[in-house]
Amino acid sequence: MTERSNDIAHLGHVEVLTDRYDESLAFFTNVYGLSLSAEDATSAYLRAWDDYEFATLKLTRHATTGVGHIAYRAASPEALARRVAAVEASGFPVIGWTDGDLGHGPAFRFADPFGHTFEIYYETNWYEPQQEAERAALKNTASAYRGVAPRRLDHVNLLADDVAEFRRFMETTLGSRVTEMIALDNGRIGGCWFTVNNKTYDLACTEEHGRGHGRLHHVTYATDQREDILRAADIFLQNGVHIETGPHKHAIQGTFFLYVWEPAGNRVELANAGARLILAPDWEPVVWTETERRKGQAWGLKTIDTFHTHGTPPAPKDH
Amino acid sequence: MTERSNDIAHLGHVEVLTDRYDESLAFFTNVYGLSLSAEDATSAYLRAWDDYEFATLKLTRHATTGVGHIAYRAASPEALARRVAAVEASGFPVIGWTDGDLGHGPAFRFADPFGHTFEIYYETNWYEPQQEAERAALKNTASAYRGVAPRRLDHVNLLADDVAEFRRFMETTLGSRVTEMIALDNGRIGGCWFTVNNKTYDLACTEEHGRGHGRLHHVTYATDQREDILRAADIFLQNGVHIETGPHKHAIQGTFFLYVWEPAGNRVELANAGARLILAPDWEPVVWTETERRKGQAWGLKTIDTFHTHGTPPAPKDH
Amino acid sequence: MTERSNDIAHLGHVEVLTDRYDESLAFFTNVYGLSLSAEDATSAYLRAWDDYEFATLKLTRHATTGVGHIAYRAASPEALARRVAAVEASGFPVIGWTDGDLGHGPAFRFADPFGHTFEIYYETNWYEPQQEAERAALKNTASAYRGVAPRRLDHVNLLADDVAEFRRFMETTLGSRVTEMIALDNGRIGGCWFTVNNKTYDLACTEEHGRGHGRLHHVTYATDQREDILRAADIFLQNGVHIETGPHKHAIQGTFFLYVWEPAGNRVELANAGARLILAPDWEPVVWTETERRKGQAWGLKTIDTFHTHGTPPAPKDH
Amino acid sequence: MTERSNDIAHLGHVEVLTDRYDESLAFFTNVYGLSLSAEDATSAYLRAWDDYEFATLKLTRHATTGVGHIAYRAASPEALARRVAAVEASGFPVIGWTDGDLGHGPAFRFADPFGHTFEIYYETNWYEPQQEAERAALKNTASAYRGVAPRRLDHVNLLADDVAEFRRFMETTLGSRVTEMIALDNGRIGGCWFTVNNKTYDLACTEEHGRGHGRLHHVTYATDQREDILRAADIFLQNGVHIETGPHKHAIQGTFFLYVWEPAGNRVELANAGARLILAPDWEPVVWTETERRKGQAWGLKTIDTFHTHGTPPAPKDH
Repeated sequence: MTERSNDIAHLGHVEVLTDRYDESLAFFTNVYGLSLSAEDATSAYLRAWDDYEFATLKLTRHATTGVGHIAYRAASPEALARRVAAVEASGFPVIGWTDGDLGHGPAFRFADPFGHTFEIYYETNWYEPQQEAERAALKNTASAYRGVAPRRLDHVNLLADDVAEFRRFMETTLGSRVTEMIALDNGRIGGCWFTVNNKTYDLACTEEHGRGHGRLHHVTYATDQREDILRAADIFLQNGVHIETGPHKHAIQGTFFLYVWEPAGNRVELANAGARLILAPDWEPVVWTETERRKGQAWGLKTIDTFHTHGTPPAPKDH
Repeated sequence: MTERSNDIAHLGHVEVLTDRYDESLAFFTNVYGLSLSAEDATSAYLRAWDDYEFATLKLTRHATTGVGHIAYRAASPEALARRVAAVEASGFPVIGWTDGDLGHGPAFRFADPFGHTFEIYYETNWYEPQQEAERAALKNTASAYRGVAPRRLDHVNLLADDVAEFRRFMETTLGSRVTEMIALDNGRIGGCWFTVNNKTYDLACTEEHGRGHGRLHHVTYATDQREDILRAADIFLQNGVHIETGPHKHAIQGTFFLYVWEPAGNRVELANAGARLILAPDWEPVVWTETERRKGQAWGLKTIDTFHTHGTPPAPKDH
Repeated sequence: MTERSNDIAHLGHVEVLTDRYDESLAFFTNVYGLSLSAEDATSAYLRAWDDYEFATLKLTRHATTGVGHIAYRAASPEALARRVAAVEASGFPVIGWTDGDLGHGPAFRFADPFGHTFEIYYETNWYEPQQEAERAALKNTASAYRGVAPRRLDHVNLLADDVAEFRRFMETTLGSRVTEMIALDNGRIGGCWFTVNNKTYDLACTEEHGRGHGRLHHVTYATDQREDILRAADIFLQNGVHIETGPHKHAIQGTFFLYVWEPAGNRVELANAGARLILAPDWEPVVWTETERRKGQAWGLKTIDTFHTHGTPPAPKDH
Repeated sequence: MTERSNDIAHLGHVEVLTDRYDESLAFFTNVYGLSLSAEDATSAYLRAWDDYEFATLKLTRHATTGVGHIAYRAASPEALARRVAAVEASGFPVIGWTDGDLGHGPAFRFADPFGHTFEIYYETNWYEPQQEAERAALKNTASAYRGVAPRRLDHVNLLADDVAEFRRFMETTLGSRVTEMIALDNGRIGGCWFTVNNKTYDLACTEEHGRGHGRLHHVTYATDQREDILRAADIFLQNGVHIETGPHKHAIQGTFFLYVWEPAGNRVELANAGARLILAPDWEPVVWTETERRKGQAWGLKTIDTFHTHGTPPAPKDH
């Protein structure tokens, strides 16, 4: 067994694109429960109440919906340098350094072969309450507790037409580990769940054939309890948000989930993994077959059709 | 900032001593909900339903109650070798290699200055269901789900009369990080919470003065939801188990907790941390003052007196 | 407004028929979590941990599955006499008095036009623990708390081919009130939810056309919390029980539900209504249209086909 | 057994007095989560999101804190007439008819011997959403679901220096039943829990000796789940609200509770009774002895001192 790399600390933030900026921003702040850290001409910088960084979701005005870039934070300046070298040696397309953004310092950008832009950075701005009302009552939480709001960024799910190649991309550039995967009868990988730390996954990639390039499946924030998700279902219902599927429990990863579409059509999830962590340093991927998948989710719910087709931006054929 | 070591993967198991073996074993299996993996002349080897290793709690017949040893699993054979070298160079007392035990391979033993024995190992036996009824319905969980049982080992809390020195011990030998701590007005450290991974803590050490040596404060298993702990409170009540304090929420670490005493008197806890993880690679310890501690727990519960005095084995003056 | 009758106190027990007695009994005691109060040559008498009566579910060996009889307890001997007079005056078929059964005294039996037998009684045997282990730790609960078990009988759902007539039956014989109902576009009543007290419903009747006579749709027990139902889903999954649909929230009545089939095929539900009660003495039925029903359940789940077809005993055409 | 009266349907509303009106109103609307139905020169009319009546809490500007009056809704005009006759025949002080109030019609007022004013009424204004945002997504709930808000009025707790006499008052005037009570070693009744329907209690009375007259112990709203109360604890903590005791489980009635003081000092509770109801028409009061009370609450929490002394308005000796 080669030793596992620990150069990447965690998923840092995700840039989500919207062609209905005002409605999307209202959803993420008023209904989904994220806080606005800052806003500039093109984007809103948002975070969950216990995210320690300035922003974990960057919502950007754009001609389409979808994902702008996915950012991971390195474990140290030295770790960042090691990862940059690994990316440059990987042969995957390098975009190069940016000066950073509101909330974090210099970032090194690169891309997967499927149209997704990634960046890695180390310097970051820890969130500082701007007013008393935002200050946490308990000094070990990042900001004021809010009952209807998710706690922290959890993971992002991307689409690609060759998950095996995407796996090579994640292992080579970020040193991610695969914790679970779907082995299709045709020998291909239907989906792959990755992590860089003890989380059960921080990024998932599922297969789509020629429907699009660089598409987003969903972005997810974590709640403390399953009850928070049951409550959120009533809040989404009350606010006329399209509930796609759930609440229910995934067979893969055992995550309790609820999927909705924000006004612009991007899929967002609320999830709770309970006490599940991947602690074993020598964890081997759990492999699911098509036969097992046909049983539906953990408690028998059939996966809804749109879950296999809807991504953002919409595929040309969806128009 | 020196780079964080990732040589130690996680807390592996804790050996708990009992002078009422039969009653303790009945409690841990019938009420607390652990499963018996094996039993020999001196000990019972127990695990929670989703612990991946053969055993996470070793219950041993002894003249007293208390803790036998605390075991951490290394991230790889190379990491184990690095840690052994670090321990040998640390000057802390070395006990040396053992052939291992039911459930794991060779372990390197050493001690802190406060009477606690530690060991680190890499080779382990992954739990394998011995009969169909033990097999999990979902292949990504270790064994059959049981509704009244905790999910996995969470942490252990030890007592020492010099927490600053114990901190040096943990940082030097295991490369642990401090996530939260209590700074007493007299300049001493009242308590320290340590982690080797993304868990908020896997070991805590609190100060006691001359009451004993090598004493245990408590051992804790994690539940998936806070509701599991509220339910457990009714189960403990129904079974006549001494409920010491809780359910309530700790200010430090924000853990939802319930403390009971198993029949022999060892304190055991059920805890739920929600979605809280320490993801920041540059996390700085949260420091709590005595003034802040006087406010009691998160929701105002005054800490019960026995929590400051009861440890196992009982202090001489307790007899 | 005519004054509401309060002669009937509550749904007392339901007799469920099984052609796989041993497997059904094992399910209700080991998995569903009911306690066995007594057993005779033909039946098992079961109750939930906080049902105050000797039995709330009578499981009877039979050539088919289905429902034997539905029993309501009167509020007093005088109220029982008033109800008997009302039934005799109603024109609905009278079966007459029985000497009672294990658990209760004399019962007056009658039938609806759709093959279901009802009985009303007043004298009942309050449950008395037979051994210490069954005694509740809290004197205001009926028996020992059990974490994986439902708390009390909640309601029964019957099938009939004329719900309007069944409504007349319930209002005339038991003085039940309708709290919610489905008005079909064809002018018929698709379903009706009844109560005799402050529960939102204790009996529901849904329409089926010529599939059978005297059929049962399901029997339901109540849990204290929604979390109990999420946990039960994992327990059913672990025990290979057929989960038909849920957990999810009904739009009608807002009940959080989970439906499974016990080994003989009878549908049983676990439900939680939260704090919802019908307190208004002048409550008017909430009427749902077919258009509203097409939106599915509260959070959008489409009602599964078998929910509209599966009843017990199976309809001839199902063979 | 005399037949139980069902003339009174349920507890309708409670008038709470405050000498810090603005702060109290901000607490009840912004933190506790009630909605403002109307406001006039002296009072604010508030309701929980699923209360069907126009108002269940009337918050009134006053020279002191405490309770203004307690109102019960009759089951019908005829039932109201019967109750008025019963009150007039009872010998307890009659105040007479009022024209009613915002939200309800004519009310008949009378008093207990301990300084509390009661009223009974039948005509009431059902809550009608004034704007779309207040309309419930589900037509069987009274108004828009709000995640951090209690669901409905649950009960009120009064103080009196002769609980036995207060019991006679409740049984004679309202036909209430006692479900649980505390029998003191000195032969007196320490506390009594009453209900007029299937709720386990809608009014409690506890003994105090000469500390005051017509005092309020607390007013309580019900939540759907225990998790709502755990969440509320964090919300109260975040908002600097004084948390007096809880969350924990009462031994008496088994209610899961959390007590806080609103800014003016009135004690308000959030409670969850799970699926517990009093369905038995012949339920006998559960009697608790002082010895049993000394064990503390269900899970061992010692009752906090202020719970035995703090009432509103404050007793003279408290100044």
